[in-house]
Formats: sequence, C-alpha cells, structure tokens
Amino acid sequence: HFLKALTEITPAFGVSEDDMKGCLEGGLYKFDHTTDQILEDLSAYARSVKDGSESNRLVSLLLHGPDGSGKTALAAAAALASEFPLVRMLYSNQMAGMGESAKMNYIDNVFRDCYKSPLSVLVVDSVETIVGWMPVGPRFSNEVTQLLKVKITAKPPKGHRLLIISTTSRYSVLQQMDLLSCFDRDIGVPNITSFKALNTLIAQTGFFDQQACAQIMDQLARVQPNLNISVKSVLTSMETARFKK
Amino acid sequence: HFLKALTEITPAFGVSEDDMKGCLEGGLYKFDHTTDQILEDLSAYARSVKDGSESNRLVSLLLHGPDGSGKTALAAAAALASEFPLVRMLYSNQMAGMGESAKMNYIDNVFRDCYKSPLSVLVVDSVETIVGWMPVGPRFSNEVTQLLKVKITAKPPKGHRLLIISTTSRYSVLQQMDLLSCFDRDIGVPNITSFKALNTLIAQTGFFDQQACAQIMDQLARVQPNLNISVKSVLTSMETARFKK
Amino acid sequence: HFLKALTEITPAFGVSEDDMKGCLEGGLYKFDHTTDQILEDLSAYARSVKDGSESNRLVSLLLHGPDGSGKTALAAAAALASEFPLVRMLYSNQMAGMGESAKMNYIDNVFRDCYKSPLSVLVVDSVETIVGWMPVGPRFSNEVTQLLKVKITAKPPKGHRLLIISTTSRYSVLQQMDLLSCFDRDIGVPNITSFKALNTLIAQTGFFDQQACAQIMDQLARVQPNLNISVKSVLTSMETARFKK
Amino acid sequence: HFLKALTEITPAFGVSEDDMKGCLEGGLYKFDHTTDQILEDLSAYARSVKDGSESNRLVSLLLHGPDGSGKTALAAAAALASEFPLVRMLYSNQMAGMGESAKMNYIDNVFRDCYKSPLSVLVVDSVETIVGWMPVGPRFSNEVTQLLKVKITAKPPKGHRLLIISTTSRYSVLQQMDLLSCFDRDIGVPNITSFKALNTLIAQTGFFDQQACAQIMDQLARVQPNLNISVKSVLTSMETARFKK
Amino acid sequence: HFLKALTEITPAFGVSEDDMKGCLEGGLYKFDHTTDQILEDLSAYARSVKDGSESNRLVSLLLHGPDGSGKTALAAAAALASEFPLVRMLYSNQMAGMGESAKMNYIDNVFRDCYKSPLSVLVVDSVETIVGWMPVGPRFSNEVTQLLKVKITAKPPKGHRLLIISTTSRYSVLQQMDLLSCFDRDIGVPNITSFKALNTLIAQTGFFDQQACAQIMDQLARVQPNLNISVKSVLTSMETARFKK
Amino acid sequence: HFLKALTEITPAFGVSEDDMKGCLEGGLYKFDHTTDQILEDLSAYARSVKDGSESNRLVSLLLHGPDGSGKTALAAAAALASEFPLVRMLYSNQMAGMGESAKMNYIDNVFRDCYKSPLSVLVVDSVETIVGWMPVGPRFSNEVTQLLKVKITAKPPKGHRLLIISTTSRYSVLQQMDLLSCFDRDIGVPNITSFKALNTLIAQTGFFDQQACAQIMDQLARVQPNLNISVKSVLTSMETARFKK
Ligand SMILES: Nc1ncnc2c1ncn2[C@@H]1O[C@H](COP(=O)(O)OP(=O)(O)OP(=O)(O)O)[C@@H](O)[C@H]1O
Ligand SMILES: Nc1ncnc2c1ncn2[C@@H]1O[C@H](COP(=O)(O)OP(=O)(O)OP(=O)(O)O)[C@@H](O)[C@H]1O
Ligand SMILES: Nc1ncnc2c1ncn2[C@@H]1O[C@H](COP(=O)(O)OP(=O)(O)OP(=O)(O)O)[C@@H](O)[C@H]1O
Ligand SMILES: Nc1ncnc2c1ncn2[C@@H]1O[C@H](COP(=O)(O)OP(=O)(O)OP(=O)(O)O)[C@@H](O)[C@H]1O
Ligand SMILES: Nc1ncnc2c1ncn2[C@@H]1O[C@H](COP(=O)(O)OP(=O)(O)OP(=O)(O)O)[C@@H](O)[C@H]1O
Ligand SMILES: Nc1ncnc2c1ncn2[C@@H]1O[C@H](COP(=O)(O)OP(=O)(O)OP(=O)(O)O)[C@@H](O)[C@H]1O
Ligand SMILES: [Mg+2]
Ligand SMILES: [Mg+2]
Ligand SMILES: [Mg+2]
Ligand SMILES: [Mg+2]
Ligand SMILES: [Mg+2]
Ligand SMILES: [Mg+2]
Repeated sequence: HFLKALTEITPAFGVSEDDMKGCLEGGLYKFDHTTDQILEDLSAYARSVKDGSESNRLVSLLLHGPDGSGKTALAAAAALASEFPLVRMLYSNQMAGMGESAKMNYIDNVFRDCYKSPLSVLVVDSVETIVGWMPVGPRFSNEVTQLLKVKITAKPPKGHRLLIISTTSRYSVLQQMDLLSCFDRDIGVPNITSFKALNTLIAQTGFFDQQACAQIMDQLARVQPNLNISVKSVLTSMETARFKK
Repeated sequence: HFLKALTEITPAFGVSEDDMKGCLEGGLYKFDHTTDQILEDLSAYARSVKDGSESNRLVSLLLHGPDGSGKTALAAAAALASEFPLVRMLYSNQMAGMGESAKMNYIDNVFRDCYKSPLSVLVVDSVETIVGWMPVGPRFSNEVTQLLKVKITAKPPKGHRLLIISTTSRYSVLQQMDLLSCFDRDIGVPNITSFKALNTLIAQTGFFDQQACAQIMDQLARVQPNLNISVKSVLTSMETARFKK
Repeated sequence: HFLKALTEITPAFGVSEDDMKGCLEGGLYKFDHTTDQILEDLSAYARSVKDGSESNRLVSLLLHGPDGSGKTALAAAAALASEFPLVRMLYSNQMAGMGESAKMNYIDNVFRDCYKSPLSVLVVDSVETIVGWMPVGPRFSNEVTQLLKVKITAKPPKGHRLLIISTTSRYSVLQQMDLLSCFDRDIGVPNITSFKALNTLIAQTGFFDQQACAQIMDQLARVQPNLNISVKSVLTSMETARFKK
Repeated sequence: HFLKALTEITPAFGVSEDDMKGCLEGGLYKFDHTTDQILEDLSAYARSVKDGSESNRLVSLLLHGPDGSGKTALAAAAALASEFPLVRMLYSNQMAGMGESAKMNYIDNVFRDCYKSPLSVLVVDSVETIVGWMPVGPRFSNEVTQLLKVKITAKPPKGHRLLIISTTSRYSVLQQMDLLSCFDRDIGVPNITSFKALNTLIAQTGFFDQQACAQIMDQLARVQPNLNISVKSVLTSMETARFKK
Repeated sequence: HFLKALTEITPAFGVSEDDMKGCLEGGLYKFDHTTDQILEDLSAYARSVKDGSESNRLVSLLLHGPDGSGKTALAAAAALASEFPLVRMLYSNQMAGMGESAKMNYIDNVFRDCYKSPLSVLVVDSVETIVGWMPVGPRFSNEVTQLLKVKITAKPPKGHRLLIISTTSRYSVLQQMDLLSCFDRDIGVPNITSFKALNTLIAQTGFFDQQACAQIMDQLARVQPNLNISVKSVLTSMETARFKK
Repeated sequence: HFLKALTEITPAFGVSEDDMKGCLEGGLYKFDHTTDQILEDLSAYARSVKDGSESNRLVSLLLHGPDGSGKTALAAAAALASEFPLVRMLYSNQMAGMGESAKMNYIDNVFRDCYKSPLSVLVVDSVETIVGWMPVGPRFSNEVTQLLKVKITAKPPKGHRLLIISTTSRYSVLQQMDLLSCFDRDIGVPNITSFKALNTLIAQTGFFDQQACAQIMDQLARVQPNLNISVKSVLTSMETARFKK
C-alpha cells in the first residue's frame, strides 16, 4: 500500500506548456497590424493579472472570430509569452468520447491545477466544442456549460491569480447562452480581407516566388473581389496546391 | 469506531459569515442615495423578523437588477449588519459540478443549519444560477427550483425566525417560473445612470486625480450620453486601465 | 430482532390534526359573508359523507382562488370542524426534496392511513405544488399527477367514508390537466374586493385604532380604486408596517 | 423451500367477476331505449364470439362517451350478462403508482389469465387512463399504449375465444393515437339530453315524490333548455341534495 | 454443467413457416386481378434471388396499402409459395412488452437465423408497429428503426441469398423516416373499390345465397356509391352479421 | 493468466482492406469523365498526405451525392489505389445494434488503429448513418457526432499521416450539423443525367445487345426526358429485369 502510494503519479489534466507549442506549428506571420494589436492587448491583461492590487485577481477574456482565423494560435502565443509559472490549455479533443460527468471531472481538475500555482494562464479553447454544441436541436450539455460558467467567473483562492483566454468561433451561440457576461472583455480575430495582407502572408511563407504570387493575387482579385479568407485555409491550400496536376 | 465518531467534524454547508466578507472586498461606496435606502429597507425587515409577534416568523426578500449592479454586495452587507446569531449564504459556486440530488441535499442542509439558530439570516445568491438556468431550450433543474420554492416559503420551526435575502439578475425568468409570489417583497438595485453618481464613485475610489476624473466624465458624456453602467464594471475597468499602453 | 420490531414506530404520513391547527394561526376573521358561506357548504358535504346511504361514500371538493386568498386556512378549518375520527393533510412541504417514487409512496401512504378509519377527512393542499408544476416548459410529474387523479376519484374500501378537500391557486392548470372532472364540486375563495370588508378586517385585527384605519382606507380608495387584495397579504403587510421608518 | 412453493398462491390479475359488480352499485335504470339497445348489441357480439366459426375468435369493442355517461356500468353489465366462464376487468386504479414495466407486466398477466379459459370476456376500462394520458404535453406511456394495441388486436391461442369491451371518455385521443383501427366496432354511450328521460330516471330512483320531481323538471327546463347531463352526475347530485340547507 | 449444455435448446426467433399459415386462415379469394398480379410480381423477385448472378444477392420489397387490405396475407402467401428452404416472419406481437434492447436482440437473431440458410425469405410484418410508431409526438424507437434500416439493406454473407418482403399500412411514415430508399421496390395493395369485385368476393365466401348477395350490393350502391373497403373488414363483418338480431 | 494474455487476439476494428473490395463488386465502369476526375482528385490528396511537409499531416475529404450515385465505391477504390500501408473503412453496418457508448468505443478504436501506421487512409462511410440520423424529430446521437467531429479534425500523433475520405448522401444534414467545416474539401458525386453516359454504361455491362440497348434508350428518352438516375439503380434494375415475365 505504501509503495503503491509512492509510485502513483498524479495524472496531468489539460494540455501542457510544451504541447501547446503545437498550436503554433503553422507559424505566426505578421501580415498586418491586427496580430500585433491583439497580442499587445493580451499582454496588457497578463500584466494586470500579475501586478494588479487584488491578491486573487481573475481576468477572463474571449477571442472570437470565423473558423480558422487564428484564435487558437493567438491565444496559445499570448499564454506562452506571458511567462507565467503555469501555462495550460483546456482542449475539447482531450475529452473526446468522455461521458458528461467524466468531462466535468476533467474540467474541474484543470482548474484545480491552475489554482495550485500563484500565477496561472489558462487557454479554454473552443468553448462551443467543449460544451458539445450541436445546432440541430439545438443540443449541448447544460451541466458542462454551467460548470464552465462558474469556473470562468470564480475568483481563484486567496494568493492565486489567474488569466483565462477563451476562444470561440460561435460568438452568437455564447450570446444566446448568456455566457458573454462571464468575460471581462471580448476581442475579435478577423479573417483576411485585404489583398495587401494576403500578399504579405503568401510572400512570407516562401511557398511561391514573387511572380507566381503576383499572378495568384491578380486572379483572385478578379474572381473574388470581396476577399474574406482565413489564415488557416490560406496555409492549408498552399500545401495541397503543390501536389495537384 | 468510537474515536472516529468523536473526531468527525460536522461539515459546514453554505458560505460562512467570515467568507461572506469577500463579497464586499470591492468596498461599498456611497455614490448616491440608493445604496443607503436599500440598506435601510433591509434593516427594517431584519428588525421585523427579530422583534415581530410570530414565534416562527419568516420574511423572504428579493434583490433584483442588471449584471454587476451590486446585488450580492448589498445582500451580504445587510446580512452582516443584521448582527443575527447566524449569518449564512447559499452560493452556486459551492455546488458547481454537483449532480441534481447532491445539490438538493446541499440546499436542504443549508436551510437545516439556519433552522438550528433561533434567529438567522440567509443570502440566496443568484437564484437563476442555483437552478442552472440556460436560456437556450430553456433548461434548468425543475427539482432544484421546486425545492427552493418550498424552502423560501416554508416557515421555520416554532421558536426559530429567518430572514431570506435572495438576489437575481434575471427577474423575468423568476417571473416566468412563478417564483415571484414566493417573496414578501422585491427590491430593485439599479445601474448607475447619472454622471454625478459616476463622478462621485470614481472620485471616492481614488484611482484618478480630480482632473483626470473630470476629463473621463467629459469624454463619456459625449460618447454615451445615456449612461447605464454597473458599479462592478466601473471598478473592474479602472483596475485594468492602469496596465494599458 | 424481536425487540426491534416491538419498538419500531409506524411513521405517520401527512400532517396530523394537531399540526394542521398551524394553518389557522393567522386567525379566521369574519370580515364578510363569504367565509361563513364556504364553511357552511363544506360542512354540508361533511354531513353527506357521514350520513349518506353509500357504505363507501367518497366526496371530492376543490377550493380554488388567488394566492393567499385563504384556501388552506378554510380547508383546514372545515376539516377540523368536521370532528371526523381522522383528520389529515397532504402538504407539499413534507415531500420537498423527495424523488418521484418516494413522493408517490408518501402519497399512497397518506391515503392508506385515511382508509384505516371508518370516517376520514383529508386536505390535499395546493395540488399544483404537489405535482411540481412549473409554467416554463411546462414541467411537472405526470406520474404523481396520475396517482393523485386515481386517488382522488377512487372509492375507499367498503365501510370506509372519505371527504377530500383539495386546494389550488392554479385553477386553469388543473383544467388543462383534465383534473377538474375528478372533483364533485369546486368552490371559489375570492380576494377582498370591497373597502367595507377590508375595513372590517383591519378593525378586527386590532393593529390600528379606528382613526388610523379610516385614514388608510381613505388613501387606498384614492390610489387603488379597484381593490383586489388577499387576506394573507393584508395580515403580512400590517405586521411589517410596524417596523418601518 | 418445498413447503413455500406449495403454499404460494398465484396472484390474481385484474378485477374479478365478483368485484366487477361494484360498478353497478348505482343500479341500472332503464330511463330510455339507449341502455337496452347497447346491451343487446353487446350481447350479439358475445354470442358471435361464443358460437362463431373461428376456433380462436377475437372481437374488440369500444364504448365511448362523455364523463359519467355510464360506459363502465354498461361494459360491466354486458360482461356479467354474457355468462362466459371467465369474466375479468382491467382497471387503472389497480395499477396506480406502478412503474411502466410493472404496469406492462400486470397487463400481460391479465391477458394471460383470459387466454387460460376457452371463453373469456375482458373489460378494459378507461383506455386513456391506463396509458396515463395527460393533455399537457401531451404525455402518456407509449410503451403501455403499444402493448395494449398489440393485446387488443392479437388473436388468442387456438381453441380460446375472447371478447374485449374497452371504454373511453377521450375518443379523439384514441383517434390521434391511431388506436381506433384496433376495434372491430365502436359504440357511443350518450348523455341524457331529453327531459322525458331525465324525469323517468329521477322517478325511478325514488328520491323525490312526483310533485318535487315535476318542480325540478320545470326549473331545469327554464334554466338549461339544452339539457346535456350524465347519469352519474344526476345520481350523485341527488344524494348530496339531501344534506344541503 | 455438461448435461445442461446438451439439453439446452436453441430458441427459435420469428414466426416459423408452419405458424405463418395462420395469416392465411381467412383464405385467399381471387376476386379481381390484383391479387394474382401481386403474387406473380413477388414470385419473379423470388426467382431473381434464387437464380441471380450475385452469390449474396439481397432483394428488399415493401407491400403497402390501407388497414386490412391484405398485405400480411399476400406477403405470407408469397413467402410460402417461394419454397425457399427457410421461410420466416418478423412479427411485432412476438416482441410485445419487450424493452428496446431485447427487441433489438430479437430482430438481430431473426436475421442471423435467415443468414444460416443459403436461401431464405423473410416477411417483416408491419414495419411501423415494429418500431413502435405513435403519431402523437410522434414517438418511436430510433434505435430499432436504425437497426431495421441496416438489416434490410445489408447484404447477407457470401453464399447466402435473402428475399425480404416488408409490409406497412403507414407508407407516409416510412417516407418521413427516409426508409423508402431501403427497398428495391414498393408494391401497393389496394382496397376493394369496385362493386363487381366485392360481389365476387361475397359470392366466393358462400355466406350468402345469390339473392341476398344482390340485395346487399344494391343497398350498398345507394348508401356508399364510392366504395372503398378492405377485404379484412368485409370478411369480419359477414361473420358478425350472422349473430345480429 | 499468463497464457490467457498470450493467446488473446486483438480484435480488429473497422472493415479491412480485403473486405473493402466487396464495395467494388458491381465493377467500376468508366461511362463518363466524372469517375476519372474524382479518382484523380482523390489521388492528388493521397500524394499530398504521403509527401507533404508536415510530419503529422491530416487531410479530410467528403464525397457527397444522391443515393446510389457511387460514393462508397469511389471512396473504396481511391483508398485501395493509394497503396498506403494501412487501408481501413468505418462502416455503420458493423455497429448495428450497438449502444451509444459501444459505438463510440468502436469508432475510437478504428482511429487508434489508423494512428498505429505511419501512413493510413480511412473511409468513413455514410456519416449520417453512423450518427443514426432520423429526419423525424430529428433524432441522432449527438455524442457520436461530437466524437466523429473531433476525430475527423484531430491531427494524428507526430510521425503519423492520415487521409480520411468520408461519404454522405445527406449533404444538407451535415451542413445543419455544422460538420462541413471539418472537411478540407467536399467533392460531389453526381447521378447519371446524360443519355450518352447511360448508353455507355449499359453497353459496358454486356447485359443487353446493341439493339436492345438502343431500344431502351429510345423508350426512356420519351418517358423521362430529364434523366436523373443512379449507377446503382441502373445496375440493380438490369439484374432483376432478366427474371420478369
Ligand atoms: N498571424 C497569425 N495569426 C494567427 N494564426 C496564424 C498567423 N500566422 C500564421 N498562423 C497560423 O494559422 C493557423 C491558424 O489556425 P488556428 O487553429 O489558430 O485558427 P482558429 O481560429 O483557432 O481555427 P478554428 O476556428 O478551427 O478553431 C495556425 O496554424 C497558425 O500557426
Ligand atoms: N454602493 C455599492 N453597492 C454595491 N456594490 C458596490 C458599491 N460600492 C462598491 N461596490 C462594489 O461593487 C461590486 C458589485 O458587485 P456584485 O458582485 O455585488 O454585483 P452583482 O449585482 O451581484 O453582480 P452579478 O449580477 O454579477 O451577480 C462589489 O465588488 C462591491 O464591493
Ligand atoms: N376569513 C378568513 N379566511 C381565510 N383566511 C383567513 C381569514 N381570516 C384570516 N385568515 C388568515 O389569512 C391567512 C390566509 O392564508 P392561507 O395560507 O390560508 O391562504 P392560501 O389561499 O392558502 O394561500 P396560498 O395561495 O399561498 O396557498 C391565514 O393566515 C389565515 O389564518
Ligand atoms: N342506464 C344506465 N346506464 C349506465 N349507468 C347507469 C344507468 N343507470 C344507472 N347507472 C349508474 O350510473 C353510474 C354511471 O357511472 P359510470 O362510472 O359507469 O360512468 P362512466 O361513463 O364509466 O364514467 P367515467 O367517464 O367517469 O368513467 C353508475 O353508478 C351506474 O350504476
Ligand atoms: N385476395 C386476398 N388478398 C388478401 N387477403 C385476402 C384475400 N382474400 C381473402 N383474404 C383474407 O383477408 C384478410 C386480410 O387481412 P390481412 O391481415 O392480411 O390484412 P393487412 O393488410 O395485413 O391488415 P393490417 O393493415 O391490419 O395489417 C386475411 O384474413 C386473408 O386471409
Ligand atoms: N463509375 C462508377 N462509379 C461508382 N460506382 C460504380 C461505377 N461503375 C459501377 N459502379 C457500381 O455502382 C454501385 C454504386 O453503389 P455505391 O454503394 O457505391 O453507391 P453509394 O453512392 O455509396 O450509395 P448509397 O447512397 O446507398 O450509399 C457499386 O456497386 C459500384 O460497383
Ligand atoms: Mg481553434
Ligand atoms: Mg451577484
Ligand atoms: Mg395555501
Ligand atoms: Mg368509467
Ligand atoms: Mg397486416
Ligand atoms: Mg454508400
């Protein structure tokens, strides 16, 4: 019994700092000002948590925007840049296939871990996926939603400070669920809508030479004059394009 | 077995008097008459419970108002000011993640504790959160709602007097649920709508000097001539503002 | 084992005759004719149960009216006045927090107790609360409703006579539920709508002297010319009024 | 173990022939032709079951009409008059408080008992109550309904003949549920709508002398010229009337 | 243990060939061309299953038509006429009172039995009843429906051929459920709509002599000029008619 | 215990490469350009997975089109042609009759198996059937849908590459379910709408000689000038036609 207790390893809940770096594998290109502005904003909130007057300060933020606009990458980048002693991510994939109560237990443990450090940052990625949102019905787990709501608004114990950066691509769903009032501020992460930004992005990736790049821009401008494309789909399409024909 | 029984400690249900003081950490600024009026009103009800003719007198009140308008702080302040032998709070965060029957058991125990003292005051904070209200559906626990309804209207045992101060930011939800008739009176806690009150509040906090304060007021008056802001968001914004730029 | 069996006490189900007197603690003021008429009506039904020709006679009545109009007090008063050997009340508060099947078991036992005496009167207080009626949804326990429906219409065993006096403040709910046909007659318990009756009531309570009373009436007549107030709220308000200011 | 098995008594399911006589305690007055016609009709079906050519003949009938129009009394009377070796009734009160599967088991056993005799008649009283019909929702047990549907249409085993007389006061509910096609014929049991029939009925009961009777008729004709009253409520009202005033 | 295993008899699932003959007890009268046409059609499909090129050929057919139009009788007749080594019927009555998973297990076993023979024909009688269709709600077992859908479209194992003849009197229900695409063809079984056909049928039964027959036709033609009657109700009515008056 | 562990055989999840060939038993006729184009497209994606720069590359595709248009055959053909070390199919029939959690476990295991090989291709056949889609209600398993959503978008572990080819004949259902954004691209598989293509197909099968073929085309062109027919139903009809008459 004694031995067993000694060798038991506390299971880790949530994505660790190391694994979060995977969210940034696509790189973080600076193709326009938005990226910098958002990162700066997030950094100010991190400082306010670290140095604020309250001993158990909590700040909850929400990054929202269309599918693939870069929310997860930005949230992870900001969390990693904060250099807080504990950096963690709550990620729906890790709860795939769990029953409702197992999920709730998991979430509870992720927050418990955060409360252990005097200064933590937690990315809650894709809130609508965590609660199992399904527009047909609609269906979702009210139990998980209520738990998340409480956890996102509950002050950590005395002497512990916590920054929560949540993301969602279904802003209106969170609105209907009355979840928006849980966040101290929400920050939009837009798609690429200017040809200049797109050009910069493609150039930075180095997949195409300058001429090919100009040609693509030219074609796009004619076909789709109102550009609205996510950074994720730009990067994915370029990878696939190499193997076509 | 004997020893174990002796050393078992009765678990406490609900938030204790000491912990309730945390609800007032933001301070209680007297920026206009409303705060005083509400506290006076609540104090009159406390006196009527303490000195009323019935031996098992019950008074149930409801504080309602927009998110962050100060309901919890005022309820806690009134409860603490009553100087009743037992001061307690029923608070949804403490039931986070509990199943329906565990929640019901917990609520039952909080009331049982109140019935033990001859004179108790109980804050039932955010009724809609306790019953798990979700506007999508809508969903909530009818079992918990029915229990709360019975508990809020049930007279304590003979020789025991009880003052219940509930809060809600979803007045219309309680109305739809036919819960309003459970309360002897409901008291509104409004947002700040006058620039004078806001000015007083900011001045009292001491975050800004008089000049900065005047400037902010000036700007606000132009941007948002119909002021409607909660005391909570005023205090939170000022804390963050220090770390921006 | 033997000893234990001997000392086991049969649990009592429902509110006993003694405890029912608590429903009348507010007194029974005769401020207009209605009270007397209703009590007389109920007394006639009690006689018809006691002396009717059928050996297993059942009469089911329904008192309905607005919140606080005095239904429970009148039902209890009539039951106590009947002087039947067994007087009992089925009261939702006693089932608070029970699961559906525990509730059904409890209800079954209350009726079983009634069937033991040759002549019983049972008050079924607030039918809509017993079935857990919630207008949002709407939700309620169909199982409990079906059981109550059967019990309210089922003749007692041969040689046993039963008078059931049910109350409700949600007449239209019972109508939608097709429960009205379960009762042999329904009797309305109205609010106070005449200033004369209100005056008589306030005078009888002795809280105010004649002059104060006249003054209140005067003010009310101007503010609220179409009077519609429950006896319960009149009595509660007067108690609180003493501690204001 | 052996002894116990020997002394175990097979429980009886459904209401026995003797107990069914209780349904006729109010008597069976012949106040107009309808009663006779219905009984004759039912008797013809009983004969067709007894003497028909099929060895496992099944006939399913449905008596329908307003609350209290006498359906249960007529079904019981016809069943008792058939003089079949087995006479039984499936009655919702006996299943009060049972769970869904206990109910289904009970129903199954009632039919099993019927199949044991070569010639049985079964009264299925108040189909809508057996399936737990609740208009709010609407709610009911689909499991029980499906079972009843199968049982009402399933031929008994070879060499066994069965007459089923069901009753309902919610004809349109059975229609919505697609249950009407389960019955070989449905027979209406109307309320009393002629003053002559009512007069005959009251005279036959012998509660009032001829003069009082004429007077009541006279008053009624003025107050309620379009008479529509159930035989049950006529009989109940007369019993109560004796104790009024 | 050994003995027990030896004496255990594999339970049979579904209605056996012998018992299916009971579906034809009412006889199979040839009162117009439809009956022959349908039987011929079904026989062609049986041949195509037996002699088709695929080694694991599956053909799924659907007989649909109004209540009592003769679907079950025709499906059973065709199955029996096929002279396939295994003839079986899946029949809702045999699953009456089973829970959802017991039903699914039963269905699975019926199909398993069919897969054992190299050449099988299976009648799936009244699909809507098997899935527990209830128009109020509507309610039904999605689990059973999904299973049936898979089983009706799944090819048998290599070297096994299967003809499935399903019946339904709720064609539009199967349409809403997206089940129609599961069948290779659907065949309508109409009611009797011509007086000539009805005359032939009645004559063939031999219940009435020619004169009585002509008289009935004459009366009917006047009362109900647009004839639409099922063969089942014609046969049932004639049986009962003998015992009237 | 030791022996047992040794002899335990890991169960295989999903359809193996060998069994997938059964999906192509009907042959793969090249009756117009579409088939080739789709196969070429799929082949390009397979190459991009095999040779792409990411070490854990995932590509998710969706083949959609009307019932029987050939989606499963084309997905299987492309998977088999990829010559990836692991070729697997997730097929609803193999989960028939499983409860929700057994299904989820099964799906999880299929993906686990895929993750074991450095290079895998997985056909997810008929997504709407896997999630148990029922248009009446509508009903489906949200748990299974959420799991599938996560699995289809989750990158395999480092050093493992995965191509997923899903099929559906209910494109709009997947759209409502917000599942379309899970796929990197969706590819339509149309029905046959030109007489030329149909002619080529029938000629290629060799069921009819040239003259018969021309005759059929001629008749069809008159009856159904707007041709829209699936390759599956063309092949099935021809097989049956041989046994008619
Ligand atoms: N400036 C940038 N901002 C954000 N992402 C960037 C940027 N530059 C490159 N990327 C890359 O683009 C991808 C954005 O994908 P990401 O998963 O973060 O988007 P998302 O908005 O979270 O998508 P989803 O709505 O699917 O959750 C990442 O691979 C990231 O590395
Ligand atoms: N006069 C005042 N009245 C109320 N709160 C005040 C006042 N002055 C300062 N405060 C501070 O403002 C904050 C009000 O927040 P509180 O949580 O009480 O609001 P709330 O209405 O309960 O919010 P929610 O709707 O989120 O429950 C508290 O921190 C409190 O200390
Ligand atoms: N004439 C009267 N009739 C009824 N109640 C009276 C009368 N006079 C005084 N009372 C007092 O008024 C109060 C009526 O409250 P009671 O609980 O009976 O009302 P209720 O209609 O049952 O309310 P609810 O709708 O909340 O159940 C009781 O305290 C009772 O003692
Ligand atoms: N001719 C008659 N037909 C029917 N019932 C009669 C007749 N004469 C007297 N009665 C009496 O009238 C009463 C009819 O009540 P019964 O319970 O049979 O009505 P019901 O239609 O079944 O009512 P419910 O709709 O409540 O089930 C019985 O007590 C019966 O004895
Ligand atoms: N030509 C015929 N075709 C069909 N049934 C016939 C024919 N001639 C006589 N019958 C008899 O008519 C009856 C038809 O009843 P059957 O149960 O087959 O109808 P059904 O359409 O399956 O009814 P349901 O809709 O209730 O399932 C059977 O008893 C059958 O023996
Ligand atoms: N060019 C072709 N493309 C696709 N299928 C073809 C082609 N030529 C012949 N076939 C045959 O046609 C049939 C197509 O059926 P398949 O089951 O693949 O269709 P499906 O679209 O998956 O149908 P469902 O919507 O029922 O899932 C197969 O038997 C296949 O062998
Ligand atoms: Mg993301
Ligand atoms: Mg609050
Ligand atoms: Mg009451
Ligand atoms: Mg009845
Ligand atoms: Mg049939
Ligand atoms: Mg397919």
